[in-house]
Amino acid sequence: MQNATLSFSEISQSLGPLIDAALDARTQLGEGCPARLREAMRYSLLAPGKRIRPLLALLAAQACGGSVEEAMPAACAVEMIHAYSLIHDDLPAMDDDDLRRGQPTCHKAFDEATAILAGDALLPLAFEILAGEITPPEVAVACCSKLAKAAGACNMAGGQADDVGNEGRGATASAAGEISDIDLLESIHHRKTGAMIECALQLGAIVAAADKREMEALEQFGRRLGMAFQITDDLLDEQSTEAEMGKRTGKDARRGKLTFPYILGLDRSRQYARQLVAEACEALAGFGPDAEGLRSLARFVLERNH
Amino acid sequence: MQNATLSFSEISQSLGPLIDAALDARTQLGEGCPARLREAMRYSLLAPGKRIRPLLALLAAQACGGSVEEAMPAACAVEMIHAYSLIHDDLPAMDDDDLRRGQPTCHKAFDEATAILAGDALLPLAFEILAGEITPPEVAVACCSKLAKAAGACNMAGGQADDVGNEGRGATASAAGEISDIDLLESIHHRKTGAMIECALQLGAIVAAADKREMEALEQFGRRLGMAFQITDDLLDEQSTEAEMGKRTGKDARRGKLTFPYILGLDRSRQYARQLVAEACEALAGFGPDAEGLRSLARFVLERNH
Repeated sequence: MQNATLSFSEISQSLGPLIDAALDARTQLGEGCPARLREAMRYSLLAPGKRIRPLLALLAAQACGGSVEEAMPAACAVEMIHAYSLIHDDLPAMDDDDLRRGQPTCHKAFDEATAILAGDALLPLAFEILAGEITPPEVAVACCSKLAKAAGACNMAGGQADDVGNEGRGATASAAGEISDIDLLESIHHRKTGAMIECALQLGAIVAAADKREMEALEQFGRRLGMAFQITDDLLDEQSTEAEMGKRTGKDARRGKLTFPYILGLDRSRQYARQLVAEACEALAGFGPDAEGLRSLARFVLERNH
Repeated sequence: MQNATLSFSEISQSLGPLIDAALDARTQLGEGCPARLREAMRYSLLAPGKRIRPLLALLAAQACGGSVEEAMPAACAVEMIHAYSLIHDDLPAMDDDDLRRGQPTCHKAFDEATAILAGDALLPLAFEILAGEITPPEVAVACCSKLAKAAGACNMAGGQADDVGNEGRGATASAAGEISDIDLLESIHHRKTGAMIECALQLGAIVAAADKREMEALEQFGRRLGMAFQITDDLLDEQSTEAEMGKRTGKDARRGKLTFPYILGLDRSRQYARQLVAEACEALAGFGPDAEGLRSLARFVLERNH
């Protein structure tokens, strides 16, 4: 027996404003914070976004019998890490992007130094929130530990380093006629995107005092969802317009980046994403209707057009 | 009664190798970390440095009756935050420096993207170490909270933002004949440098289960020491050679930055630093010979030539 299915847009409409209010409240930043730095942090953090990661934290907590309220600090922390990573990824020395979430990137709207520092300040703020708001202490410590690993050199930062270092590899592979390395691509994306998606789910589960079986199921769910999300991102980059995406599109191909469409072609990429989402939902079989939100979010990944 | 005074160089010779070994062990970074990223992180973190912040953490723990061993994770964490901040401060969009700790800056030795990511990866690693190695959980949480605040928008990142934003103010003030704002300068340096110096002391004290009186005394000590440290930094920038400092010198004046020598002149700056160190040592009056290491370090700040 399951509840009537909530669509992603219904979930997003009900939880999105709560997330945005929570992010807003935690970035008022009092004495000592330069106004321009605060403005830059809030400009990028509060820009219209899908809030996938905070939603995953909240929905995972719900799936494990917890509440939105107790998972909100974790939701804010993962969105801050995500926002910081977007700001730094967009820098001229990295992906050099001008448009993000439908508005000029942080270094374009402000300047490069301010953008670097806005990212640098969002990162510790995530830990300040986890350490300052989550109780009991052993749960806060577990959250800090998970988030630190997910953002670190072996995961998000490392994935981005390999992704930047990997530019031109698609074109090279093509020119040399060699078989492209889907394992490399999956490894990059698992670290760059997947680790934080899994982390969002784990933090939600940890604050809801999930048991080992629930944690493992969410790990399976997150791993597949993260990869599906990246595949649809690659597909959208190739097929959407800038106006739809709110960021520059077609750039992967221009830069000769390894992508799923490049390796598998469009049809097999779509099929692979569908398979991953199906497997992700199967991983939630042990959960009842409380996990319906996570299932809706997984289905949305296939349908999204931005 | 006090122990025979240990000089800073004796302290540094005994604890420095332990700190370096601890930093080395914590940056081996296994699966998932790209070799080049690990190399860049270690290049900057393990470069010869005075290790002032980790020494402060260890010496504060000793002053409060704790051990070097239990304070080592905190010592590593503060040095990682320091190393990340140097890497990002040196970037072309920030202070644009080519030389640091006697070697090419991270973005010169590697590239800008790698340098940004090396900083981005050192930052969460500091929290991973605090959350993963310090017990009991409430002590680990207190450490994460303090470190996050000290590195954040209202302190280190904010101070750097104001410092970058403030370039040219010295020259402008001079041209206009207006009286320079020593309060602004102290506020910038308290946040940019002082907060992390205080934090190093606090983390050492927290892991040693210091009482309120000890914490407050160390706060007084740290506040004065941090400012004295900055004044001597300004004096060295004006008076030393690049070879002595291992970084570019004379740059503050060229950039028209507000500095203590600019505002107070050389003699009064030196006198102010001496006064601050004397006050810092007075703040430790309640400590016995166990705080002798901190006193030596404070005296060293006046004598240092790099």
